[in-house]
Amino acid sequence: MILLCNDDGFNAVGLRTLYRELSREDDVIIVAPETEQSAMGHAITLTQPLKVRKVEEEGRLIGYAVNGTPADCVKLAIAVLLDEPPRIVVSGINLGGNLGICALYSGTVSAATEAMIMGVPSIAISLDTYENPDFNPAAKFARKLIAKVLDKGLPEGVVLSVNVPPVPENEIAGVAITRQGKSRVVESFDKRVDPRNNTYYWMAGEMRFDEVEEGADCVMVGKNYISVTPIHFDLTHHPSIETIKDWNL
Amino acid sequence: MILLCNDDGFNAVGLRTLYRELSREDDVIIVAPETEQSAMGHAITLTQPLKVRKVEEEGRLIGYAVNGTPADCVKLAIAVLLDEPPRIVVSGINLGGNLGICALYSGTVSAATEAMIMGVPSIAISLDTYENPDFNPAAKFARKLIAKVLDKGLPEGVVLSVNVPPVPENEIAGVAITRQGKSRVVESFDKRVDPRNNTYYWMAGEMRFDEVEEGADCVMVGKNYISVTPIHFDLTHHPSIETIKDWNL
Repeated sequence: MILLCNDDGFNAVGLRTLYRELSREDDVIIVAPETEQSAMGHAITLTQPLKVRKVEEEGRLIGYAVNGTPADCVKLAIAVLLDEPPRIVVSGINLGGNLGICALYSGTVSAATEAMIMGVPSIAISLDTYENPDFNPAAKFARKLIAKVLDKGLPEGVVLSVNVPPVPENEIAGVAITRQGKSRVVESFDKRVDPRNNTYYWMAGEMRFDEVEEGADCVMVGKNYISVTPIHFDLTHHPSIETIKDWNL
Repeated sequence: MILLCNDDGFNAVGLRTLYRELSREDDVIIVAPETEQSAMGHAITLTQPLKVRKVEEEGRLIGYAVNGTPADCVKLAIAVLLDEPPRIVVSGINLGGNLGICALYSGTVSAATEAMIMGVPSIAISLDTYENPDFNPAAKFARKLIAKVLDKGLPEGVVLSVNVPPVPENEIAGVAITRQGKSRVVESFDKRVDPRNNTYYWMAGEMRFDEVEEGADCVMVGKNYISVTPIHFDLTHHPSIETIKDWNL
């Protein structure tokens, strides 16, 4: 059994394309947010209950829609909804890349991370465009990568975060094993005043590419490579431990 | 100017204790969520506008309450609300520890991270209890640590995540520079049925301590040390890059 999750919501095209591609050869079930949960990071829901809607299509159970975050969905799926743990969790296919620092804000990545924390191997996969997305090349690559992960096994505590360039399959330059880049979104805030004279702000922003080095996810996707970044969640910056010890706090 | 944020909300006692302690010697301003945002991870708000409420007390501006996440607050403060960047951002004092894997879910930690991404040094500070909290020892330590950070400077891209044991000041054993432990909350879900016969779940959970090694945050706080963990946000697991390259994807 393969468990699918995402942050764009149960009916997102990227998720459904992945479902179709993987169902050809595997049992697949979706446990995903009822509505869009982009940029939810690793949020979980403690102050509200989680409602679960069973989804059947053409007389067949395809999954559960949850009024929660991507991390909630994975927790609930593995702890409660599924009879046995999935062999692998795949999160995506996200509409939009999760490159550089953006990985921190990504609900897509956090769903995969949550699976890893719960002891299930996982992949996050994102298509680096918001316009006219064709998710099929990414779905095909996901199928190939899943087979590899199940065959080889992932290093302990490691998740793969995949970003696919938005080009036809025959224009993909190859697969690059990358590191998380330093590029980030620089926000702008659009200030407005409502009819009752209250000020409010819309967050917007543009990706700023600070990277030029080969080996960074954003650089390689820009060259039409599929980037595969092994990520983990020991946030400790080990080299700083000695530095801070010298402060004699 | 010191900027304070948190995830427990603008009126949380931990934040206000910190404000009082730091205002004795510094200009301090609060930009914090209007309501509790615990476990929001690094969520940011893209689908709704951010409303900002100016807060004055005794005729003096003390800050802004924002209907957003901790990361939203820091972004908005630095990009829009403050005339100049703060010298340092301090997030907390959180009610409850952010030890081990919990750091991933923590809005407190993410506010500090956001500051670091925007180029401002930052500290997250949490008191490891939910019962009868006395935030004063943590607030005093925060003041001392801020002075040290401003004097020494933090290594690039590094944030300090501090956890304080819930004991009187004279029982604090010392300060330990630690790594993020592996302990985590193991969830349980409480299943209920509403009056209209819909099933829903409350997420609950207990911290499971998987660590025994000295050097881990949770171990040292358990021994009544204040733990200071340097964290960063390159999520790349560098050793796995070569491993995955051998897969010949």
